[in-house]
Amino acid sequence: MDQPSTPIQMEGPVCPVPLRHNEQIVLGHGSGGRMTNDLIRQVFQPALSSPALLEGNDFARLSLPEGAALQGRLITSTDCHIVSPLFFPGGDIGRLAVCGTVNDIAVSGARPLYLTAGFILEEGLPIDTLHRVVQSMQAAAGEAGVQIVAGDTKVVERGKADGLFITTTGIGWLPDQIHIGGERAQKGDVVLVSGSVGDHGIAVLAERGELGFTTEIKSDTAPLNHLIDAMLQAAPHVHVLRDPTRGGLATTLKEIAEQSRVDIQLEEKAIPIAPGVRAACEMLGFDPLYIANEGKMIVILPEDEADAALQALRAHPYGVSAMRIGAVLPGQSGRVSIRTPLGATRVLDMLAGEMLPRIC
Amino acid sequence: MDQPSTPIQMEGPVCPVPLRHNEQIVLGHGSGGRMTNDLIRQVFQPALSSPALLEGNDFARLSLPEGAALQGRLITSTDCHIVSPLFFPGGDIGRLAVCGTVNDIAVSGARPLYLTAGFILEEGLPIDTLHRVVQSMQAAAGEAGVQIVAGDTKVVERGKADGLFITTTGIGWLPDQIHIGGERAQKGDVVLVSGSVGDHGIAVLAERGELGFTTEIKSDTAPLNHLIDAMLQAAPHVHVLRDPTRGGLATTLKEIAEQSRVDIQLEEKAIPIAPGVRAACEMLGFDPLYIANEGKMIVILPEDEADAALQALRAHPYGVSAMRIGAVLPGQSGRVSIRTPLGATRVLDMLAGEMLPRIC
Repeated sequence: MDQPSTPIQMEGPVCPVPLRHNEQIVLGHGSGGRMTNDLIRQVFQPALSSPALLEGNDFARLSLPEGAALQGRLITSTDCHIVSPLFFPGGDIGRLAVCGTVNDIAVSGARPLYLTAGFILEEGLPIDTLHRVVQSMQAAAGEAGVQIVAGDTKVVERGKADGLFITTTGIGWLPDQIHIGGERAQKGDVVLVSGSVGDHGIAVLAERGELGFTTEIKSDTAPLNHLIDAMLQAAPHVHVLRDPTRGGLATTLKEIAEQSRVDIQLEEKAIPIAPGVRAACEMLGFDPLYIANEGKMIVILPEDEADAALQALRAHPYGVSAMRIGAVLPGQSGRVSIRTPLGATRVLDMLAGEMLPRIC
Repeated sequence: MDQPSTPIQMEGPVCPVPLRHNEQIVLGHGSGGRMTNDLIRQVFQPALSSPALLEGNDFARLSLPEGAALQGRLITSTDCHIVSPLFFPGGDIGRLAVCGTVNDIAVSGARPLYLTAGFILEEGLPIDTLHRVVQSMQAAAGEAGVQIVAGDTKVVERGKADGLFITTTGIGWLPDQIHIGGERAQKGDVVLVSGSVGDHGIAVLAERGELGFTTEIKSDTAPLNHLIDAMLQAAPHVHVLRDPTRGGLATTLKEIAEQSRVDIQLEEKAIPIAPGVRAACEMLGFDPLYIANEGKMIVILPEDEADAALQALRAHPYGVSAMRIGAVLPGQSGRVSIRTPLGATRVLDMLAGEMLPRIC
């Protein structure tokens, strides 16, 4: 790793003591003193170098998009990430922490611009683990086109946390002409999903060894902002966008139905579910409609733009298996129902308790 | 507590099941489903009601100050809070989480506007504890004049966290005419501190029972934005503002000296230290200049505005014991030194390891 670029003559150590990758986090790394400084300069800044981070203040100065300032609003969202284990097929806590917050911003219709990241580390965490996570964050941020501009690190004693928790907060910019929100679903609208559901939850479960068999399922963790941009070009009048994370497709649609005071009906056979996810859910007694996703979104939009939206989604790597899965009915009771292949209808409520803790 | 104001006809529970205050957090409260929804509606929304939170989206839409948009920049900062215990004389983790981030924004010279809050809860946390913390956050946010606009809650199993961690992120607005930063200290500048140092750290230690004797010391946890406003009216050419939290006065000044490439000299006898803090530090072998503060700031500014700034600080409840404690010397080595009452000089470096873990 590089030394910081501005060596200064001073008493005490002239340059920070290089951290060895086989070292572990100790309480001193959270002291706010020299060791915190070394960790920032040697682990965080080299990976996450943005102009704001390099200024070395406790705050970041940010610019708004050129000329946009008076015709829009800021969008912000925050998410804590506590997934266990830290690494899983298709992702890790770092990629998840970036994508989760990028997606929460992007489903408002806004352009995600900046992220902050707060790290709570357990004493004893290998510094190499932190390295890998931070590099994964930077890769995901690069893919999404956002800058990580501010951070904080705290360390707690062994046994007072579980390795590493990351809280990210995003800031985006929403031009005034975009109107997307959970309260805007209307009767006659069409419901799309951008791809198969349940992959993330099952991939994490499998990595924990809780399936009892091996599976090829990978987490779908991905930043959706470019997919959304492409879709909004083709279908500019989208009413609702939301990423069905914790609680899955069913809980998210139920939230939307309540917010918009509409009824929503799904067609079970239209909902894309990977064979491995279906098999795992059947064995474990889970309903895949309640399993978390981290790279999928629900789209609710007028019928006349549905085909154009589907086409745009399927043309993007993160939307190839997008499907039309249901419709908004004339009722106003906030009910979500699903029609089975045999023609029966069952009602979907929100997830009641906790099926899969520590999934995100 | 009130029921939500928009009851909706639906299958399943018509209204959320009221939470009892003697209940504990369970994993289901972090599921993203019905129990999370109940916790949000019954604990978070009643206390933290801001228009953005009540919209129920995963993101918040925010307005910039009227007319300000094209003549300034956004400021953001994030902080994780892991203080143990959760409640201590003069404050609690909620007040700390709000004030810490408000202050990081305010010392840039910006007006703090919005906060987000991410909660990591340990299974078994009494819901009443969460209630008290959230109410304390709202009181501190009200005092500072900021809105809490977005949040997230995750729950980890018993033994995988320590009660409650809170990560807050702030957004503020910095008008273009304000230029304050850690890199702007200049030779000939004067160094002020807004009050006595070490109170917060010693108050938390005392609450943990680690002093071996009782003390009246209270944490100074406070939002400093109004104090800063008042001072900038009187002294508009301030070069550096910073709150000496972890690492204390000495570490913070050392950071500034390195950033600005200047030498700083303090007068030991001018630094305000409460008798109880001095006594505790002498007994424990701590240097009060390295103890954390949560409601104090360092001001570095031109000599000709120093008296006006001091007067403005002392006229505000959070600045009554403000003092002029040192000066910026002609050297450029990033050295911070302190002159003792006997005329000797010693050098202050950053805090090397960790003196007081879990202090903020």
